[in-house]
Amino acid sequence: MSEEIHPGLEDVVAAETQISFLDAEHEQIVVRGYDLIELARSSTYADVAHLLLFDHVPSEEERAAFARQLGDHAHLPEGVADILRRLPSDTVAMDALRSGLSILAGFENAEVLADHSREANLAKAVRILAKSPTLAANAYRALHGQPFVQPNPGLSFAANFLQMIYGRPADAETIAVFDRIMICYADHELANSTFAARIVASTFADIYGAIVAATAALKGPLHGGANEAAARMFAEIASRGGPAAAEPYLLERLAAKDRIMGFGHRVYMHRPDPRADLLKADLDAIAARDPDAAAMVQTYEIVVAVMEREKGLHPNADLPIGLILSLVGIPIDLFTPIFLCARNAGLLAHVIEQHEHNRLYRPRVVYTGPRDRRL
Amino acid sequence: MSEEIHPGLEDVVAAETQISFLDAEHEQIVVRGYDLIELARSSTYADVAHLLLFDHVPSEEERAAFARQLGDHAHLPEGVADILRRLPSDTVAMDALRSGLSILAGFENAEVLADHSREANLAKAVRILAKSPTLAANAYRALHGQPFVQPNPGLSFAANFLQMIYGRPADAETIAVFDRIMICYADHELANSTFAARIVASTFADIYGAIVAATAALKGPLHGGANEAAARMFAEIASRGGPAAAEPYLLERLAAKDRIMGFGHRVYMHRPDPRADLLKADLDAIAARDPDAAAMVQTYEIVVAVMEREKGLHPNADLPIGLILSLVGIPIDLFTPIFLCARNAGLLAHVIEQHEHNRLYRPRVVYTGPRDRRL
Repeated sequence: MSEEIHPGLEDVVAAETQISFLDAEHEQIVVRGYDLIELARSSTYADVAHLLLFDHVPSEEERAAFARQLGDHAHLPEGVADILRRLPSDTVAMDALRSGLSILAGFENAEVLADHSREANLAKAVRILAKSPTLAANAYRALHGQPFVQPNPGLSFAANFLQMIYGRPADAETIAVFDRIMICYADHELANSTFAARIVASTFADIYGAIVAATAALKGPLHGGANEAAARMFAEIASRGGPAAAEPYLLERLAAKDRIMGFGHRVYMHRPDPRADLLKADLDAIAARDPDAAAMVQTYEIVVAVMEREKGLHPNADLPIGLILSLVGIPIDLFTPIFLCARNAGLLAHVIEQHEHNRLYRPRVVYTGPRDRRL
Repeated sequence: MSEEIHPGLEDVVAAETQISFLDAEHEQIVVRGYDLIELARSSTYADVAHLLLFDHVPSEEERAAFARQLGDHAHLPEGVADILRRLPSDTVAMDALRSGLSILAGFENAEVLADHSREANLAKAVRILAKSPTLAANAYRALHGQPFVQPNPGLSFAANFLQMIYGRPADAETIAVFDRIMICYADHELANSTFAARIVASTFADIYGAIVAATAALKGPLHGGANEAAARMFAEIASRGGPAAAEPYLLERLAAKDRIMGFGHRVYMHRPDPRADLLKADLDAIAARDPDAAAMVQTYEIVVAVMEREKGLHPNADLPIGLILSLVGIPIDLFTPIFLCARNAGLLAHVIEQHEHNRLYRPRVVYTGPRDRRL
């Protein structure tokens, strides 16, 4: 054993994968061989999920069959709604999603649950993918005393998810940008939550347990919570007067050595996140349609310019996503659950890959505590 | 980034810690500077938990105060029992514990939940430590339609846990060996579940989420599930006729290239696990008291001898623990939940340490999939 410590395992290769790769040098996010940005421009979330799970973009026939499967499995089993309504109302929405996913495991047949073959895992993956938006939206509804909204299997994945969030149909522009956000979030190599899922899966724990662990990880403010933090920052700047308040606000926080979420990334370092560039165009489109939103987008531009000037940092995907989700009226507590539902496609693919090529994760420590203490 | 792959992160140092260390060279498990085997011989689980959380063995006054705290917090919040009773009866007991721990987070004040200071984390850790046995025992009871058993704060940690499992007071010998098993399981350096907890904590996700992830990891047959697998093996050998059936059974499984759980360990390699040696004495004591158990212990000895002869492997802690828990009449589905409740002390200490000296875990991959696919 080498005594060299790798804090945060930075630059340590912890897995071999055929699923995705951050090619920081070429500023490309590779997903199953495709450029994620091309997928986000020209595909749908369901197609990308199919690509991640089955390693190919669906044919027209496969697309229809996959949509049917997702629709068939979107309903929650009887009893789950009842449990969600019994959670204490202080429960964080992301924790309710975590509990719900954990509980769903009990609705699988015990043998199916313990079967880690590719076939059994794919069947469970489709069920988890299909049910998660229903769970996320309705857990939030339960915590807020709102009526449940059943999934509508006739809608696209994004349209159905938005309808369950809003309690009414979403417009075409919002569906399109939400779908694009879900694609941007679909997979991102060995992000912390994906790593957590693979570690849990490496004990041959089942795919539900691995996704529950990923949900726990994604909640953290240094990970999935970043889009919430970005949205709260934009709300704070707006409450201080809008675009003119952006620079003083940021300089104040930077002087206090606060960490500004939505900027920089361990892997991209000082290069731009291509997802942020893509989604800036969506922000511009929203600004063109809505004068109130235009001021927020102006704030966004100032924030980006100041952070580049002061810290040399570029926005990552969480910055535009936090703002877009706010502007389309989604409750902030749902941002991280939405991230999880989108990342599910990648997470599930990684768990399946881990089970197929398994080696138990069990690293070592450097011990710096006392020795030879006696009772 | 180096392209060197570390499958399972074997021999990679992933954390600096003052909590515990497997000194394989000296065959010693170091816990906060003490030899775990000395602790198991001369201490109690509550003392070891105090040591892990507060870095010192309690004084008499601290011991009484800690016992009072654990007793005060052992009750489940109102509503949890009701949720446990609504879980589908096919739910695996370990998954019910995972769901229950996830749900408990919602009973914390939201600000306390998000507070990762040492003080706030320690307060939550004591609550998790105290409530987990109540949750584990009563989740099992709920799944089997048995009446709930309330915790008895007047009993020791082990005696109270056993009483909730059995539904009646346990005898002194069983309490003593159960307490020793809990100490043996209390911490074990960077085991997979501990690593999972630290990874989740490194996003500044809260301590509940980290423990939920650890629970998910511990369920796996390559990790916490090993004690169950060992117990099932002994039951199978007994059903084939007892000690005389042990060698043919093992040779048959080895010829089929089955993995025999309860033997070997990534870190110990071909050295003995000191916990297994310690607990063999408990098996001998049980055999001396009970002739039926004596045959099982004889089987144990044959299994150990055959595995050493055939594979050069020594038993790890899971082998004697699986057998002891069977012999004292604990349902097999509770073995891994018991492991989690015992490991809690270490897990909670590791999460607190991670939050205090944090660096986000975010390793890299080697990508072996296709490139340059186009829509």
